[in-house]
Amino acid sequence: MGKANRLSEGELRVALADLPDWRLADGKLRREYRFRDFVEAWGFMSQAALRVHELDHHPEWFNVYGTVRVDLVTHDAGGVSARDVALAGQLEAIAARLSAERG
Amino acid sequence: MGKANRLSEGELRVALADLPDWRLADGKLRREYRFRDFVEAWGFMSQAALRVHELDHHPEWFNVYGTVRVDLVTHDAGGVSARDVALAGQLEAIAARLSAERG
Repeated sequence: MGKANRLSEGELRVALADLPDWRLADGKLRREYRFRDFVEAWGFMSQAALRVHELDHHPEWFNVYGTVRVDLVTHDAGGVSARDVALAGQLEAIAARLSAERG
Repeated sequence: MGKANRLSEGELRVALADLPDWRLADGKLRREYRFRDFVEAWGFMSQAALRVHELDHHPEWFNVYGTVRVDLVTHDAGGVSARDVALAGQLEAIAARLSAERG
């Protein structure tokens, strides 16, 4: 239950400080990733999908070619919760690893 | 070149007759698929991604949980082309096969 609580403004500020490429938009945590092409974008999404399934917390995400736009919100909590912040952190880790691999 | 031409209204009408679950929205060919959950939606997207890569024609698509919304348009042609119709047909075939498999 505690994990699904909506974060306060202060808590959100702290969370966003650790997620510099994310911002709050329409009450959701948002980031747009840009990959070189569809194959790289899809590689990212595929790794992310496994994590999403594991966490049982689902993004609203959009893809076209090398672009992946992600919106995270916890509808049950009526806003952004720690679960969204956790998923954002996982996505950042996946993207950073892919970026390191391709050099 | 011929394949990337924008379809005329008449050609579009003929194409849509074969794609009853698709409609024209914002100048794009649009369908929303509803699956039972994220795993089924992701299974569909994964099969579709291979086809997308093969055809080298990329959808604008959005997913949340069991919902997959697809928009098809050929920007080079300034509208819907035969390539969009072809991809829509492939997506229909994938969805139909998945639906048959799960009974």
